[in-house]
Amino acid sequence: MKQFLNDDFLLQSDTARKLYKIASSEGVIDFHNHLSAQEIYENKNYDNIATVWLGHDHYKWRAMRSNGIHEKFITGNAPDYDKYMKWCETVPRLIGSPLYHWNHLEMKRYFNYDKPLSSKTAEEFWDVANDMLCLDDFRPRELLVKMNVEELCTTDDPSDNLEYHKRLKDEEKRFVVRPTFRPDKALNILRDDYNTYMADLEEAVGYSITCYDDLCKALVDRMDYFEEAGCRISDHSLEGYVYMEDESAATQDDIFSRRRNNEAITAKEAAVYRSRLLVFLAANYHKKGWIMQLHIGALRNNSTKRYESIGVDSGFDSADDFSYAKELSSLLDAMDYNNNLPKTIIYNLNSKDNTTIATMLGNFQNEEARSKIQLGAAWWVLDHKRGMENQLMSFAESGVLANFVGMVTDSRSMLSFPRHEYFRRILCNYIGGLVENGEYPDDEEMLSEIVKDICYNNIKKFMK
Amino acid sequence: MKQFLNDDFLLQSDTARKLYKIASSEGVIDFHNHLSAQEIYENKNYDNIATVWLGHDHYKWRAMRSNGIHEKFITGNAPDYDKYMKWCETVPRLIGSPLYHWNHLEMKRYFNYDKPLSSKTAEEFWDVANDMLCLDDFRPRELLVKMNVEELCTTDDPSDNLEYHKRLKDEEKRFVVRPTFRPDKALNILRDDYNTYMADLEEAVGYSITCYDDLCKALVDRMDYFEEAGCRISDHSLEGYVYMEDESAATQDDIFSRRRNNEAITAKEAAVYRSRLLVFLAANYHKKGWIMQLHIGALRNNSTKRYESIGVDSGFDSADDFSYAKELSSLLDAMDYNNNLPKTIIYNLNSKDNTTIATMLGNFQNEEARSKIQLGAAWWVLDHKRGMENQLMSFAESGVLANFVGMVTDSRSMLSFPRHEYFRRILCNYIGGLVENGEYPDDEEMLSEIVKDICYNNIKKFMK
Amino acid sequence: MKQFLNDDFLLQSDTARKLYKIASSEGVIDFHNHLSAQEIYENKNYDNIATVWLGHDHYKWRAMRSNGIHEKFITGNAPDYDKYMKWCETVPRLIGSPLYHWNHLEMKRYFNYDKPLSSKTAEEFWDVANDMLCLDDFRPRELLVKMNVEELCTTDDPSDNLEYHKRLKDEEKRFVVRPTFRPDKALNILRDDYNTYMADLEEAVGYSITCYDDLCKALVDRMDYFEEAGCRISDHSLEGYVYMEDESAATQDDIFSRRRNNEAITAKEAAVYRSRLLVFLAANYHKKGWIMQLHIGALRNNSTKRYESIGVDSGFDSADDFSYAKELSSLLDAMDYNNNLPKTIIYNLNSKDNTTIATMLGNFQNEEARSKIQLGAAWWVLDHKRGMENQLMSFAESGVLANFVGMVTDSRSMLSFPRHEYFRRILCNYIGGLVENGEYPDDEEMLSEIVKDICYNNIKKFMK
Repeated sequence: MKQFLNDDFLLQSDTARKLYKIASSEGVIDFHNHLSAQEIYENKNYDNIATVWLGHDHYKWRAMRSNGIHEKFITGNAPDYDKYMKWCETVPRLIGSPLYHWNHLEMKRYFNYDKPLSSKTAEEFWDVANDMLCLDDFRPRELLVKMNVEELCTTDDPSDNLEYHKRLKDEEKRFVVRPTFRPDKALNILRDDYNTYMADLEEAVGYSITCYDDLCKALVDRMDYFEEAGCRISDHSLEGYVYMEDESAATQDDIFSRRRNNEAITAKEAAVYRSRLLVFLAANYHKKGWIMQLHIGALRNNSTKRYESIGVDSGFDSADDFSYAKELSSLLDAMDYNNNLPKTIIYNLNSKDNTTIATMLGNFQNEEARSKIQLGAAWWVLDHKRGMENQLMSFAESGVLANFVGMVTDSRSMLSFPRHEYFRRILCNYIGGLVENGEYPDDEEMLSEIVKDICYNNIKKFMK
Repeated sequence: MKQFLNDDFLLQSDTARKLYKIASSEGVIDFHNHLSAQEIYENKNYDNIATVWLGHDHYKWRAMRSNGIHEKFITGNAPDYDKYMKWCETVPRLIGSPLYHWNHLEMKRYFNYDKPLSSKTAEEFWDVANDMLCLDDFRPRELLVKMNVEELCTTDDPSDNLEYHKRLKDEEKRFVVRPTFRPDKALNILRDDYNTYMADLEEAVGYSITCYDDLCKALVDRMDYFEEAGCRISDHSLEGYVYMEDESAATQDDIFSRRRNNEAITAKEAAVYRSRLLVFLAANYHKKGWIMQLHIGALRNNSTKRYESIGVDSGFDSADDFSYAKELSSLLDAMDYNNNLPKTIIYNLNSKDNTTIATMLGNFQNEEARSKIQLGAAWWVLDHKRGMENQLMSFAESGVLANFVGMVTDSRSMLSFPRHEYFRRILCNYIGGLVENGEYPDDEEMLSEIVKDICYNNIKKFMK
Repeated sequence: MKQFLNDDFLLQSDTARKLYKIASSEGVIDFHNHLSAQEIYENKNYDNIATVWLGHDHYKWRAMRSNGIHEKFITGNAPDYDKYMKWCETVPRLIGSPLYHWNHLEMKRYFNYDKPLSSKTAEEFWDVANDMLCLDDFRPRELLVKMNVEELCTTDDPSDNLEYHKRLKDEEKRFVVRPTFRPDKALNILRDDYNTYMADLEEAVGYSITCYDDLCKALVDRMDYFEEAGCRISDHSLEGYVYMEDESAATQDDIFSRRRNNEAITAKEAAVYRSRLLVFLAANYHKKGWIMQLHIGALRNNSTKRYESIGVDSGFDSADDFSYAKELSSLLDAMDYNNNLPKTIIYNLNSKDNTTIATMLGNFQNEEARSKIQLGAAWWVLDHKRGMENQLMSFAESGVLANFVGMVTDSRSMLSFPRHEYFRRILCNYIGGLVENGEYPDDEEMLSEIVKDICYNNIKKFMK
């Protein structure tokens, strides 16, 4: 029996252990997360372990709700210590959950504490963690350095002034914090706040946006602005549908103008509008050599009651199950036909879609990059051992795994970087297993190259 | 090599074996099956092993058909012995099928016979089993006691008078037989026999059902009646769609009245009608603290030819593949919005839906129970080793596995209770594997608690 | 650690190794592929290893594109040697891909070369392979004999004159080459070239096809013609939808006549037309005792750009994700209702559909054959170790695995027959694992029967 979370955690063979030594020495490029550049810039100490762990982490919130904990201890106004104790009460029941592993990896890697968390150890760890959290070494930037982070990409609205990204670029030389261009608000024309948002965008560019061409210009101007601040990647959340074109539909300018005048837009018009604008943006990403990320299939804000009382991104989202192979194919084809398809990473949220996406990539690959179109790392609800293994196998079976650009935390928590370790262990265990089982030669040089590429080199080149 | 079906059957590690010792000593609460309370009450000996095994078991019928056996040996009028011999001829070919395991577990646990069944041993086992089946110890109730059954829940129509449940409640103290409230006939307004059914319901309640309010009152009255007889659970089969609301559709009263007058109802009206009535019923389940079971995704009576000659539930059903994430979310949201969502167990029939449901649960959990919304045990066509492992992993990865309410036989056969053993072995093997692989601490106390909770305590509390 | 591709390749237990000895001595019946009867008949030596490997193999093309290779080295006009070198550069990066295994099995089994292919060994193997390829023993027919091929079924259009099949039937006694009846062009009435195709068919039958009855007669006549040439199997590609009936739609004769006059046909009419014709054909397959193959779910020619420049079947197809349980059930039911459902093999292209199809088979089985309706071998994009294991488990869990008719290459490459070895190893490993784990008795006689049945006997009987 292996001891819980020992040095060989998740490494089931000698080859796996050997490969992990290589993997663990590579730097971290976390090219998709939801961290705050301001929080990193300001670099303030955290109040206590409850704040860091439970302040924004909707994974933990969901687990607590599933354990029958009252909302006041989750997003409510119970004292931090009480919330923390409720979390500690929940943890031992999380057998088989990635949260169990993430939580203990965080305790071990940041706080050097290795007893399992439970009501019994809760008080001890509360003290251990909080004593450390007030040290200089436990401020956000130092935590990043501790985890060997070389680059990270936050997620940002085109209207953002990127003040803290720019300051970090000037002042922080130990790692790079890049913004990501995520224009969801500009694409979703049915949003109630669309015109308010246009005002934000107008302020950002310094001119009026009265027609569709203005909007296109504004977005391209913001892309230039983002690039200046280090941006190399865009991101899009595609929900409900992926692509819809209808040649007979109204023009983009007509739809846009009506929306600006608060006139009615049909759902279908909105879909066509979004699709066309997406194709336009993609062409510009391609021109800049940017990566386009597509996150497909979230079903958001499912509890109306909680949405009204707590708001978005608080743990009431899950995986949609709609079919979108044809639409996704048409979207990529529309971009590809005029040689305007950028480097693309497609993330699916439902495991049922692994075959669909992993096999579709191959239809649009070309010489512009090694695996120009990628199946993204196991995302959100799939971000567990089995989900990661499935993603790796799907990529390998239908594409060229050695070209995979690797892991992202996609996290809102500053302490979540050990997830890269988690991924690397699973990766090395998978590859090691193939070698041990005689499915790939025991060629140290090649294996080392593959592991380094997936952990570091591929994304480095891909972002160029 | 492990010997077939030995004491360590399916237990691949020391921890698994240790945990199974704990699991196997827990009583059985089979909270969903299709047994006959009358058969249990009357407690008559069975004619022979063919009657018990092949009388109602559409799993075996399907396997025989798939082995090229003529229907006369399946549901036809061939002699029992001939049917049995055809089954014995089929069994050795069922490698990798759960039927192979169930069948031999039944031979071993009930009849203490442990040679593999085949044409060679068929005659011997025929004699062994039939000799035992005429003993007092092999009557239905004694078979239940033998398998350590403490409670079981049958599946019953609201119009049922529950005569045998009530008699059992009075007379049988070794175990509890509860009815389950399954109002499918009242919900499916397009059924040919809807008005005949209303007559049954009128007789059951003793008053006329002329408007929708009458129907609602009648169903609630029957819920009270069922509760009196020990009912704690309801059940619903959702096929083709899960939920549909349309504010502009006719009122419930209008739809119901037209149906009562044999006027036309559109498919859409029927869908809206069912959905609204379901929401109404759920609120009443919630009030009573009952559990609501939702079985989603059966595609029934696929062979018209066989349906016409043999009828329903005879082995011509399979898994549908429709998408229903949005509908299921809307259904739960409609119930939840006014705090009327009962404790709920959702069973999917297609493995592709595991991610969808397992992740949706978390959107509606709250403090009313530990994992108030549950992913049901691997159901029907998914009720095999891999299906159960997938269900356990899905529950663990996206929820709190320790809160799982565990296994049901969902069976029409009195001999199927060893399926609880089968499940418990798979459960202990899964958990044991996690511990052996260093993915969870070797904490005997906690592990014991988790295993006992899943096998027994959770459902006991959940039914309260 | 096992050495790469040694004798025990993919065999992880003693039982697996024992069973593989039995499996490997069985002859090969490759009942579905896309080889050219003419190429086999003419039996010319190949120019070089690049021609054989890269001439038609869209699997390799896709892998090369995914590795960032320029199209000129794939389907373009770069010299053979340069193309080959680009392939060799790609191979080492294919860790976890079935292509890695297929490629090295081909090198070892045909050319007795067992160093891993890479840029380092590329030149050596180029010489080794090319030296052999000009020997008499390396002509197409000798390659088939070398791989123990007893029968193979190509894929042919009803209008084909089968000249080379007939010549081979007369002249080649070492193995049988059968045509397969694939009337896709006759079924897809919306094809641009439908009337041109009718002209081909008219020429083949020697009479005019002016009404629907003529077409039916022509197709039946061609079935007779095919049967004469050894045909026992038909094949259909079902894309986008599987079955649609609409009693109120125009008659077959009306739709057909309008198409012949180049008048408009709606998409729905075309769907109904195809479905009805398919039901008609099935009845005739049933009459002849033929097998009907249904390949469901390809999404073809996804890259318009590549389609325009390269054409069909060049590696731009992937897995669709539409739902079709109800349609497939209705199709089979329509055929079954009048006892006209032939022996049928259903292949799904998306792993999400395994449950759907594996469970549907059981609805239509009967005494006409052992597992008359079959889940086809893991097909195309699913044809890898995990895909095959999933297919075997799905078949076993929901049907009778011992009746499975086994593997097909579905290949366009003369060197792809080691894929039968690959399948047999995976099969024996799966069955061996069940035995080793105590899930099936160690009954040598029965295990040997099952393995031989799946590898050889079942398809032999099924084709009768």
